[in-house]
Amino acid sequence: MTEQPRATIASIAAEAGVSVPTVSKVLNGRSDVAAATRARVEQAVSRTGYRRRSRGPVHAGPPMIDLVFHEITNEWSMEIIKAVEETAGATGAGMVLSELGGRHRPAQDWLDNVLARRPLGVILVLARLTDAQHDQLESRQIPSVVVDTDGEPRPGVPAVGSTNWDGGLAATKHLIDLGHRRIAVISGQPDVLCSRARVDGYRSALERADIAYDPALVRWGDFYIWRGEAHARDLLSREDRPTAIFAGSDMQAVGVLRAARDLGLRVPEDLSVVGYDDLPIASWYSPRLTTVHQPLRQMAATATQMLLTLSRGEQPPALRVDLATELVVRESTAPPP
Amino acid sequence: MTEQPRATIASIAAEAGVSVPTVSKVLNGRSDVAAATRARVEQAVSRTGYRRRSRGPVHAGPPMIDLVFHEITNEWSMEIIKAVEETAGATGAGMVLSELGGRHRPAQDWLDNVLARRPLGVILVLARLTDAQHDQLESRQIPSVVVDTDGEPRPGVPAVGSTNWDGGLAATKHLIDLGHRRIAVISGQPDVLCSRARVDGYRSALERADIAYDPALVRWGDFYIWRGEAHARDLLSREDRPTAIFAGSDMQAVGVLRAARDLGLRVPEDLSVVGYDDLPIASWYSPRLTTVHQPLRQMAATATQMLLTLSRGEQPPALRVDLATELVVRESTAPPP
Repeated sequence: MTEQPRATIASIAAEAGVSVPTVSKVLNGRSDVAAATRARVEQAVSRTGYRRRSRGPVHAGPPMIDLVFHEITNEWSMEIIKAVEETAGATGAGMVLSELGGRHRPAQDWLDNVLARRPLGVILVLARLTDAQHDQLESRQIPSVVVDTDGEPRPGVPAVGSTNWDGGLAATKHLIDLGHRRIAVISGQPDVLCSRARVDGYRSALERADIAYDPALVRWGDFYIWRGEAHARDLLSREDRPTAIFAGSDMQAVGVLRAARDLGLRVPEDLSVVGYDDLPIASWYSPRLTTVHQPLRQMAATATQMLLTLSRGEQPPALRVDLATELVVRESTAPPP
Repeated sequence: MTEQPRATIASIAAEAGVSVPTVSKVLNGRSDVAAATRARVEQAVSRTGYRRRSRGPVHAGPPMIDLVFHEITNEWSMEIIKAVEETAGATGAGMVLSELGGRHRPAQDWLDNVLARRPLGVILVLARLTDAQHDQLESRQIPSVVVDTDGEPRPGVPAVGSTNWDGGLAATKHLIDLGHRRIAVISGQPDVLCSRARVDGYRSALERADIAYDPALVRWGDFYIWRGEAHARDLLSREDRPTAIFAGSDMQAVGVLRAARDLGLRVPEDLSVVGYDDLPIASWYSPRLTTVHQPLRQMAATATQMLLTLSRGEQPPALRVDLATELVVRESTAPPP
């Protein structure tokens, strides 16, 4: 498969004497570009033979989509992987899976490989591209969709998430309704949007019940088991220990359960625990976890469908979609002792 | 990327007036073909322009390998996915992931897609190709490697597994050494080789300790949680209930723990439980699971390296490799009550 070199957004920018973001804005149909500038860019586009998002397949081989995780971890990643594979597979598209080794921004060699294999599109999970990387994808008519973004995606980039704030609110309200007043929360990294939204939901639930917000009961970290265990060990060793802990993930909740067990506390008799995600393990753990169901499969399937729509040169009905979370009450929560 | 139609093993067979397996044998360098027949096949190969396993890359885009599971389930699949992605990625190869929806034999449309995307090779997990499918891969110089085969792979097809028999032996011996005499085993499907090997290891351990083999204590099924729970519920409801259960997977063991809990039995005080695999969850469950460590990551990395070697037209040092399993003693086993 040999091809002549293609015009890029950068070469169009040079040709038109404007900045790369300006070219990108024009190509994305944004209205915040002066008419004269727009015309100059459009002319450069046609002079350089730059192809706008095409209507047909750009890849000669069988169609594929790229799925990339900042990190492939547990059943959380698995739910997304399965749903993308299934949704893409139903249309005959294969799935190329990669992970960024824990980084939230892809390295250039990863992107170079994507550009070379020319997928129908790219799905990023808890990862975002730089503006320059976006330009590179766009110049090849490769759309991208973000699942569960770690921050504000760039304007025009589709994103699928879930109602994290509502999830935090529902979990905390459930504990308050049971009679809890000392409620701790363990969340993810403070610079990740979903972590913040859940803690804000927690805070709102407290406010609505006239319970003072105590910063000592709010912990940040990551979504791993050991982090939940470490925070819980610390929280539960306090004299004024909480009677309930709302964890940021089911994995963290498993860590909380371990810490409670090691400290001789029974769940839910001495301590109530709420998880987040509703992974398969949540309904099998002992005790079965009360948790906030995050519709990971539907999120992944929705993102895949959006991507396939974009790859056909069409616009999906909505560019930003948050699917509903739902509290699932099982065995790990009860009234305080 | 357009190409003229290629000669296939079938067309060579027709040309040479022999069977497809005969052509395949010749191409694989097997010695059990008469000299005259071999010559006829070789001539047909050169007449049709059929390319033997080549020395260079056959794919024009960036290199990829295909990883296919009969089913993507839990952390078990995750360990393999991560290791293949990492090992392939270190050489710049991408990974295309697919699953067969629980079937152990791929459908033809899956294979057609593989043939069209021309990967460096294919890794099959608990899945096997038919002879005809093998021929199709071989005629395109696409090697394949089987991980944890569900049955005897065809001669010449590389396979990586682990020492299942030794794992069954070690788990059972551990329970016998603790003083158990009524030991049940729950394994996978009886037609899957690894399931049989583990039960045979169990049986040998009993024999060496002069404990009678009781078929009522041997259960078959699949490796899922609910299966472990169902079998355990039945086994533990017997009057002469076992004092220990050796489960075929950590997931089954989780099911056993649930059944024990529901029946009011404490683990390990009233019942000892041994799992299999040593998934991450095994060291986090309450109680922490005693289990047989299966080196899934090393198995997957070894299979990937074998595949990359084959894709360069070289032979790996060994075609069949079983990596060692190891018993990991944690909290779920103790002397019988």
